[in-house]
Amino acid sequence: MRAKTNRQVILKSRPTGIPEADNFAIVKAPVPAVEEGQVLVRNIYLTAEPAMRGWVSAVANYSEPVTLGGVMRSPAVGRVEESRHQDFRPGEFVTGLFGWQDYAVVDASAIQRKVPGTGLPISTSLGVLGLNGLTAYFALLDVGQPKAGETVVVSTAAGSVGSCVGQIAKIMGCRTVGIAGGSQKTRLCREEFSYDEAIDYKTPGLESALAAACPKGVDVYFDNTAGVISDTVLKHLRQGARVVICGTASVSSWDPPPVGPRVERNLLVKRARMQGFLIFDYVARYAEGLAALTQWVRTGLIRYREDIRDGIEHAPGSIASLYRGENLGKRLIRIAPESP
Amino acid sequence: MRAKTNRQVILKSRPTGIPEADNFAIVKAPVPAVEEGQVLVRNIYLTAEPAMRGWVSAVANYSEPVTLGGVMRSPAVGRVEESRHQDFRPGEFVTGLFGWQDYAVVDASAIQRKVPGTGLPISTSLGVLGLNGLTAYFALLDVGQPKAGETVVVSTAAGSVGSCVGQIAKIMGCRTVGIAGGSQKTRLCREEFSYDEAIDYKTPGLESALAAACPKGVDVYFDNTAGVISDTVLKHLRQGARVVICGTASVSSWDPPPVGPRVERNLLVKRARMQGFLIFDYVARYAEGLAALTQWVRTGLIRYREDIRDGIEHAPGSIASLYRGENLGKRLIRIAPESP
Repeated sequence: MRAKTNRQVILKSRPTGIPEADNFAIVKAPVPAVEEGQVLVRNIYLTAEPAMRGWVSAVANYSEPVTLGGVMRSPAVGRVEESRHQDFRPGEFVTGLFGWQDYAVVDASAIQRKVPGTGLPISTSLGVLGLNGLTAYFALLDVGQPKAGETVVVSTAAGSVGSCVGQIAKIMGCRTVGIAGGSQKTRLCREEFSYDEAIDYKTPGLESALAAACPKGVDVYFDNTAGVISDTVLKHLRQGARVVICGTASVSSWDPPPVGPRVERNLLVKRARMQGFLIFDYVARYAEGLAALTQWVRTGLIRYREDIRDGIEHAPGSIASLYRGENLGKRLIRIAPESP
Repeated sequence: MRAKTNRQVILKSRPTGIPEADNFAIVKAPVPAVEEGQVLVRNIYLTAEPAMRGWVSAVANYSEPVTLGGVMRSPAVGRVEESRHQDFRPGEFVTGLFGWQDYAVVDASAIQRKVPGTGLPISTSLGVLGLNGLTAYFALLDVGQPKAGETVVVSTAAGSVGSCVGQIAKIMGCRTVGIAGGSQKTRLCREEFSYDEAIDYKTPGLESALAAACPKGVDVYFDNTAGVISDTVLKHLRQGARVVICGTASVSSWDPPPVGPRVERNLLVKRARMQGFLIFDYVARYAEGLAALTQWVRTGLIRYREDIRDGIEHAPGSIASLYRGENLGKRLIRIAPESP
């Protein structure tokens, strides 16, 4: 096994805005020896995440920047091939930040969780039953606090987080309005993700469409974009509204921060709240979220979409592709078959 | 009594930004008859409030705009001169939105409260034991949620709300940092209002002074200003910080809203919260707040300052004067003696 080579996608240069394919390089390296307490994982699915932009930035963030020349950080799901820790056995599926590479040798503590046999594809452990679903669950319910009958507006509504947010809001008895780019995505919103209304922000008239879709105003705005979409939604907040800041997909650089209309007066007059959310603050409650999400997926109350590319060569350009809105569903990169 | 004339300050024209003296006119009118269920109040103290800018604006707000030609809305404390309601008797002191005028004939339901005999001057019922103190109390404790050992930063720190916020935060065991304009106000902050640090935003180096005063960052920012001061403080938030949006004194017009650095990324990375506050949402809890504030004022834990002008002719220019930062303490306009 030690003879295998490990293809790795490393960070070659630091982007100023969105990371592009040429900020990365694919190299080959030997698979290191597995020390006592460590596990060797064969990665099967890697991901592309909007948050990766922050991970490769040198600007202070909620996590340490990926080092230049280092393997790109990425959630992954893989199979244990060798274990020198009593909690893990070969053949088990596990998730963790195993990086854009074929093999990861990690301390057992770096494994986020074992993927239980749910009968659902293991790829879901990276999306609807992974950090995306958990983000939707805790950010909407804990920060957004939707109540039955309220209107919930979601940006990037067809995305892997947004689609889950809309469906959870629906389960909670809310009226749901999705904002997405292009008719293909708005159709997905309506037909797959059960939004009551879906608005294509790429066609003119976002504001009038939003006003028509939210006649009583917006109680919860789940924001994955910032920028002009948010500026428009914020004008339509109802008294006591909650704005969940979960992502800033529409802003290509925060150094320095771009300007936009000041929010203070609007928040004051509407007694509204804007609050940032990061899933890693909820590690202690993952089991609770996964239990709910798994049941909802099993019973069909939550549907999900995956957009899978085959081959590690798709990894370097995958972040920029996300920001161009090219994916329909969770972007995954499959680098090995599920069965050995 | 009906023979008395009533001097009234009416709204003559709608300002686009800060209301100036010439947006108002002083007229004389007869005192209307007191109907069944009504009370005649002789006003003693009127106020000038930053919020009055919003009250005279035609733009949708949390309260109906003052009508053109109508008496300017204002909190006031006065003495009951005639009562046709069983709950009120001549000689009692009462507060309410009695307006910038000598006499108000109001329905009993328009009276906010009777001023109890606390031994403290009745003028305090409009400031530290009125909406200013109540605003400080509920906005800081309910929205800001300060914990002992945390750092609380207050803008317009020497003002009638800010000075009270700083002292309540101190009572809660926080480190307090006040931001105010001019050395006279920063001295007041330190010597009267027990701030640990006070920063003069009118001298260069606000950001470095703030960083030095808040080495661990800012846990609670009580914002009365918006604008550049807020932009600076927001850069120094600690993880989990709370920003209370209580006023926007530094912004002269919100139609259209001015631009400033976008806050979304900062809120996300710091998992911080910005929330608007309006005291009128807390009417049901005023008694609780007043009980606490009265005790703190009596025992000297909260000090207050008043800046009293004599004569109704000071009312028209008083709002602009506030925005120029000319007052040292709560701006009151005395239009009658406390004793008849």
